[in-house]
Amino acid sequence: MSELETVFNQVVHSARDTAKLEGALAMLEWDEHTYMPAHGGVYRADQITLLSGMIHARRTAPQLGEQLERLAASPWAADRSSPQGAAIAGWLRDYRRFVKLPQDLVEAIARATSLGQQAWVAARQADSWSDFQPHLTEIVGLYRQEAQLLGEAGNPYDALLDKYEEGAKAVEVTQLFSYLRNQLVDLLNTLRSAPSTPNGQSWQREIPLPVQQQASRWIAASIGYDFQRGRLDETAHPFCTTLGPNDCRILTRYHIDDFASGFYSTLHEAGHGLYEQGLDPQWYGLPPGSAASLGVHESQSRLWENFVGRSAPFWQWCLPQLKQQYAGYWDDLDANTVFKDANLAQPSLIRVEADEVTYNLHILIRFELEQELFNGQLSVSDAPQAWNERYQRYLGVQARSAKDGILQDVHWSAGLFGYFPTYTLGNVFAAQLMAAAQRDLGDLDTAFARGEFRPLLNWLQEKIHRHGRCYPPKQLIQQATGQELSAQPLVNYLRAKLEVAYGLV
Amino acid sequence: MSELETVFNQVVHSARDTAKLEGALAMLEWDEHTYMPAHGGVYRADQITLLSGMIHARRTAPQLGEQLERLAASPWAADRSSPQGAAIAGWLRDYRRFVKLPQDLVEAIARATSLGQQAWVAARQADSWSDFQPHLTEIVGLYRQEAQLLGEAGNPYDALLDKYEEGAKAVEVTQLFSYLRNQLVDLLNTLRSAPSTPNGQSWQREIPLPVQQQASRWIAASIGYDFQRGRLDETAHPFCTTLGPNDCRILTRYHIDDFASGFYSTLHEAGHGLYEQGLDPQWYGLPPGSAASLGVHESQSRLWENFVGRSAPFWQWCLPQLKQQYAGYWDDLDANTVFKDANLAQPSLIRVEADEVTYNLHILIRFELEQELFNGQLSVSDAPQAWNERYQRYLGVQARSAKDGILQDVHWSAGLFGYFPTYTLGNVFAAQLMAAAQRDLGDLDTAFARGEFRPLLNWLQEKIHRHGRCYPPKQLIQQATGQELSAQPLVNYLRAKLEVAYGLV
Repeated sequence: MSELETVFNQVVHSARDTAKLEGALAMLEWDEHTYMPAHGGVYRADQITLLSGMIHARRTAPQLGEQLERLAASPWAADRSSPQGAAIAGWLRDYRRFVKLPQDLVEAIARATSLGQQAWVAARQADSWSDFQPHLTEIVGLYRQEAQLLGEAGNPYDALLDKYEEGAKAVEVTQLFSYLRNQLVDLLNTLRSAPSTPNGQSWQREIPLPVQQQASRWIAASIGYDFQRGRLDETAHPFCTTLGPNDCRILTRYHIDDFASGFYSTLHEAGHGLYEQGLDPQWYGLPPGSAASLGVHESQSRLWENFVGRSAPFWQWCLPQLKQQYAGYWDDLDANTVFKDANLAQPSLIRVEADEVTYNLHILIRFELEQELFNGQLSVSDAPQAWNERYQRYLGVQARSAKDGILQDVHWSAGLFGYFPTYTLGNVFAAQLMAAAQRDLGDLDTAFARGEFRPLLNWLQEKIHRHGRCYPPKQLIQQATGQELSAQPLVNYLRAKLEVAYGLV
Repeated sequence: MSELETVFNQVVHSARDTAKLEGALAMLEWDEHTYMPAHGGVYRADQITLLSGMIHARRTAPQLGEQLERLAASPWAADRSSPQGAAIAGWLRDYRRFVKLPQDLVEAIARATSLGQQAWVAARQADSWSDFQPHLTEIVGLYRQEAQLLGEAGNPYDALLDKYEEGAKAVEVTQLFSYLRNQLVDLLNTLRSAPSTPNGQSWQREIPLPVQQQASRWIAASIGYDFQRGRLDETAHPFCTTLGPNDCRILTRYHIDDFASGFYSTLHEAGHGLYEQGLDPQWYGLPPGSAASLGVHESQSRLWENFVGRSAPFWQWCLPQLKQQYAGYWDDLDANTVFKDANLAQPSLIRVEADEVTYNLHILIRFELEQELFNGQLSVSDAPQAWNERYQRYLGVQARSAKDGILQDVHWSAGLFGYFPTYTLGNVFAAQLMAAAQRDLGDLDTAFARGEFRPLLNWLQEKIHRHGRCYPPKQLIQQATGQELSAQPLVNYLRAKLEVAYGLV
């Protein structure tokens, strides 16, 4: 074995052990959000703090730094598209970021966000912003320190954004939003004068919880999510988490009087799960077996949730299936009505339940507020007012209380600043991918109308999943689609679908 | 702060962090037995191996050894009944044991038993001894090494026994069994000529799973188990596990056609849970806040399961409650009939479902086989035959297959050799404790008949729980009861109760 191979294998071995600890941490967090007893939270935060600190120490070990510098100078590093090159590039990117953060800050953040999330759950239930404000103040303070350390001379907010989306810049995202906002507001105006507005009758009915739970399991399995390598649970704020190469779990929530909420949330998380299950398990926990970016991750979840799950052919297949499996709940409906209701576009308060047209305006609000929180223009105590003012301005709606406003999302309690913009990047990527898949695979509508999703999943595995972090996200999408980053396909797709749903064509 | 205090606090700090990792390990194992996806097992074993190795490295760190030697020579060490003295004594006992075991053996054991338990579940389902045999061979081989290393000049099996029961010796347990066997066989003979044998009609009825689940939650809460600091789940082999100072979980199993199985298994595990919940959370993870021994632990579970849960006054209270909450399942029964059926004593195949009289004979069989496996008299491949021969000899019954024979218990797949005898010690302790509680508290029967269990729980907390490991187990029981170790109270109790149940008095 050459010296290069020896050093590479040493880092692989160490990184695999780090991944096992990350999986144990993910286990503790999954349990915190599902089954942990009410009084277990403070100690759980202590455990998470300890493990986070241990993981950080491993990620920033001086020995690792020396090994990585030697690998960086090797011929393997020259070709990022090879697994070895991708591993070296990914490790270096992560190491250089992590060494900027002192262990005490990492542990303080782990503890503050673990307690912060518990406080957020309680504050949201109690609809009490004041219970959460001190937590958010502490969390924002800690992340300001992180952003300063990571950003060095550059824009601190870009440093946060880059954590989740390699190479992304606030200025680029701003441009994207500017184009999208104009196009989407124009589309909303068009829809306002439509002859046939969906009325949401498909969801306005009580569907018992066990039926919703079974339907969610069924639809996740139907699009290819493997329950031998995953499971579905319930939680306050749906998410997807990976505990090991054959253990990727999705979590959803149900509302008894809104079937769409749980059903689409499951499709969304199952989309994330399919990406994780499509990564190469041989490289589990290493860059070649890891997701390319959060934007790419979100492209997968949004693709299955919206581009597939809100399409007309999907409901031509799905509704008869639901009617047959759970007779009595949907007898009065036809597929076209459900398709229309699944595409009702109107300003609303809750991001995760927003339609595809207004969704990006929700993201825009968080993106603007985050930048202001981090450049010092906005204080945490003024954030609820700014939130409400922004919702009024962009969406024309006003939350009655914090629960439907600033307390609706888990992200800030978890310290996920710079994360929201990746949702809109995900929508943009998904539209580009879907257009390319249709070009490559031909008539996907006929397949969907038969409940055949395997060809699309295979295409995504081939074009996206199996590459892990072998390419920077924009390059990965460019290679898969043959196109530069563009929001045009997203606008085209929305316009075409919505004009059908609203009877304009 | 004195130098002594400084060193003591350093060890406390380090031991608390070790306990957090032990809690993370317990989390991974709890999940392995409940919710882990089917294909998650191999990686889970890798994670458990890594964490076990890290914990072992912390427990055997040379710096810790030096600190402990300094503490051992301090005045604090002289008084084990103080929390500081108990901490030092407990740490020393553990350290001196752990340093005898090399890290590679600890990791090999962790991996073999994690895979072994998964293999046991599958082999038990498939009723296939041959699927499990290679795993058990490997596990016994590893524990033979451990026993050699721990036992040094002494008896290797005593070294395993001492892990779970400080100071216990095989020769003493053998004496106890010898007395018990004679007395219990005599009692069984007496019962055979009884005029009124229970017929088990109370359990021979289908009780739907949701009713059993709710009844289990209710009875656990009724005896004082705190669901804010715990939870109840289902698994193949019931157990109780502690993940943190406010997170002690119990696990049970249900059979639709045998209500007693799940109900008593829940009472048993809740008894363990009450002990854990009664330990001092301030000393969590340290000897003064840890259970005294497995025998003492088992005394708590058996006390609630049998001495309380199979008593006549318990059913005078419980049956009307069950009838009221879940009408229609028990309408034909009266409390005396259920009491009698709860005390049906007859030789059977499954230990966890054995009655109180024959239970100790099940333990005797495992105790004998374990000693033979470890002194080389018995090979793993011959174990099923020896198992069946011993059941025939002591209980007069013969398993139809491995599932009801050697594959019935999780213990050997988990490497818990030396553990079984603590079950009989638990029965002996429980009888001594119950006699003392009745002496101190007066008429407990009237309290039980009213569903009042708090006085007994308070007494146990005061006499047992709050002392943690401040006394060696036999001394703890002696202090609580005023009696030396004796199986006489157990025999007296069984004879008195069974003579009533069988209409002999």
